[in-house]
Amino acid sequence: MSRSAVDFIRKNILEMAGYVPGEQPQEAGYVKLNTNENPYPPSPAVGDAIVEVLRRGLQKYPDPLATVFRVEAAKLLGVEPDWILTGNGSDDILTIVTRAFVGEGDYIRLAYPSYILYRVLSQLQNGAWEEVFFQGDWTLTNDFLASNPRLKLIFLANPNSPSGTMIPPAVISRWIEQLPCPILIDEAYVDFAAESCVDLVKLSDRVMVSRSLSKSYALAGLRFGYLVAQPHIIEQLRKVKDSYNCDALSIAGATAAIRDQNWLLETTRKVIRTRERMTEELRALGFDVVPSQANFVWCTRKDRPVKPIYEELKRRKVLVRYMDYPGWGDGLRISVGTDSEVDCLLERLQEVLSTDGK
Amino acid sequence: MSRSAVDFIRKNILEMAGYVPGEQPQEAGYVKLNTNENPYPPSPAVGDAIVEVLRRGLQKYPDPLATVFRVEAAKLLGVEPDWILTGNGSDDILTIVTRAFVGEGDYIRLAYPSYILYRVLSQLQNGAWEEVFFQGDWTLTNDFLASNPRLKLIFLANPNSPSGTMIPPAVISRWIEQLPCPILIDEAYVDFAAESCVDLVKLSDRVMVSRSLSKSYALAGLRFGYLVAQPHIIEQLRKVKDSYNCDALSIAGATAAIRDQNWLLETTRKVIRTRERMTEELRALGFDVVPSQANFVWCTRKDRPVKPIYEELKRRKVLVRYMDYPGWGDGLRISVGTDSEVDCLLERLQEVLSTDGK
Repeated sequence: MSRSAVDFIRKNILEMAGYVPGEQPQEAGYVKLNTNENPYPPSPAVGDAIVEVLRRGLQKYPDPLATVFRVEAAKLLGVEPDWILTGNGSDDILTIVTRAFVGEGDYIRLAYPSYILYRVLSQLQNGAWEEVFFQGDWTLTNDFLASNPRLKLIFLANPNSPSGTMIPPAVISRWIEQLPCPILIDEAYVDFAAESCVDLVKLSDRVMVSRSLSKSYALAGLRFGYLVAQPHIIEQLRKVKDSYNCDALSIAGATAAIRDQNWLLETTRKVIRTRERMTEELRALGFDVVPSQANFVWCTRKDRPVKPIYEELKRRKVLVRYMDYPGWGDGLRISVGTDSEVDCLLERLQEVLSTDGK
Repeated sequence: MSRSAVDFIRKNILEMAGYVPGEQPQEAGYVKLNTNENPYPPSPAVGDAIVEVLRRGLQKYPDPLATVFRVEAAKLLGVEPDWILTGNGSDDILTIVTRAFVGEGDYIRLAYPSYILYRVLSQLQNGAWEEVFFQGDWTLTNDFLASNPRLKLIFLANPNSPSGTMIPPAVISRWIEQLPCPILIDEAYVDFAAESCVDLVKLSDRVMVSRSLSKSYALAGLRFGYLVAQPHIIEQLRKVKDSYNCDALSIAGATAAIRDQNWLLETTRKVIRTRERMTEELRALGFDVVPSQANFVWCTRKDRPVKPIYEELKRRKVLVRYMDYPGWGDGLRISVGTDSEVDCLLERLQEVLSTDGK
């Protein structure tokens, strides 16, 4: 009768390590290039919209379906509003989709290395996962489309993290007929890329595309993301989400953000310009840098381990993301900052590379 | 190969009806007494704190653990910050707890009638539920503590919805030794009640208490709730939550709200005063009204069906909640509004009751 509550927690949860997000130092003074935030602020319209909601008051529940946002996003994407599901960040969308498709013992399939969270989401369901390794040129073989009777969902980050590479929509459109199950294409970084898969959703209900406002819209602090899928799929997913998963402030802010496409284009162009310069300069410092379609670059090097570089940078108040993928290798994922942040990174890197006796 | 994505959705999801929250008309003009929102605005400090976050910017991720809030709430409750888990509304907390304890085929136990969402949360896990009916005086017999090997979690809304009644902490403290599994005491409405169970968390790791800022703090639009539990339980639950489940604006707003206890006390007192008047006046109109410790009252009547009353009120732009509990009966759950909203309700009710030929 007096057993601990721990005895009642599901084994899959007890045995999990839990997902560890990138460091979020709450003190100031860091050049923070570790979690792919936008170095530029969001559209000023976002703050105005939020202040307007404050003026109207917060005591009422928000619209459970965030209709004002869906109408605006639908216009932008050329679909109807019922093709869109909004979430408390795109992590919420990934959670909802996993909970809808993946039961105990079911499988998801992932490209590897990619966003670690997908695997965690399956673990939370007491599900399993299969990883298909990217080829050396960051393409995927047909193994990614192989059958497995317990396979319920494929995740593809596109552009991928940590590589910043992309499987072209033309390739994915050729996959559709062979897809052994639904695929969620995570387009968190797509606004920094040349193409998107969002139109493929119209071709098959097995294609779903998620988007985030954290990166390109500079709203990581607001938590807003959305899914594009066919309406009969959205209808099922609505059952899984919390009733009021998006708050009144984020609905208004996100709507204002996507209305200001000029702001998006201008800031995105700046990020891309800096990304190209960063890539060149990091290569000049001896890093192998994969050409990126995202707001970060993936850096490895053959001549020395990169973990001490991460640590030395951190000591110098420059945070980058050190990532180690067992069976694949490690590297530094460095977010694109402002030009002056990148200058600071490059200076510190020069110090670090010259002082460790190499 | 070309099966619909629907074929991959879990059966328990496909077969569910989905939780239907109370109506949230987005147009103005309604006297809205259907979802237990606070008729008074939140503390002015909330808006100030949110504007301050806007000034600092939204492009960075929020603190994944909402530490500033936890420190403040811990002071208020006399616990340490690691006894607190924050959520995107207390629905997020209920979801996290259910996902941690309830696997496929596991049972939860509920009092009946109570908050319908608990059952939905179990369905989403492909779990089952047992309902123990409240007695006529809204107490619970020892059936509520009976053993069942697959029982993983008990939910108790306290004060309960729709009744507004409460099981006293002294009674629940006597339950602790007999508890067949952990219990989540949902204190969404506790600030309108005379007592709380929060201190019982110190007596056993099988007692968890959830709170919401939606009702008493007038922040339904912000989405913020929290759980109080022993630290080793919180540690497990952190694995289940989305990394950044609370956004930067809500963390700041919620922290400002709980710092302003004077505002809470003043507005809560007004609501309680109006609740007592409402109870008397509704009884004078022929309703049976249960004495409430929440910010709503549960009204039934023996002389005529209440559903047409709900409908007629809605036609007259007064929204109350009609609830029908199979095997139990139906009634109207009416939120406590401002005095003038309640006057409006009472006038419309008089019209409705006199014009339907009775």
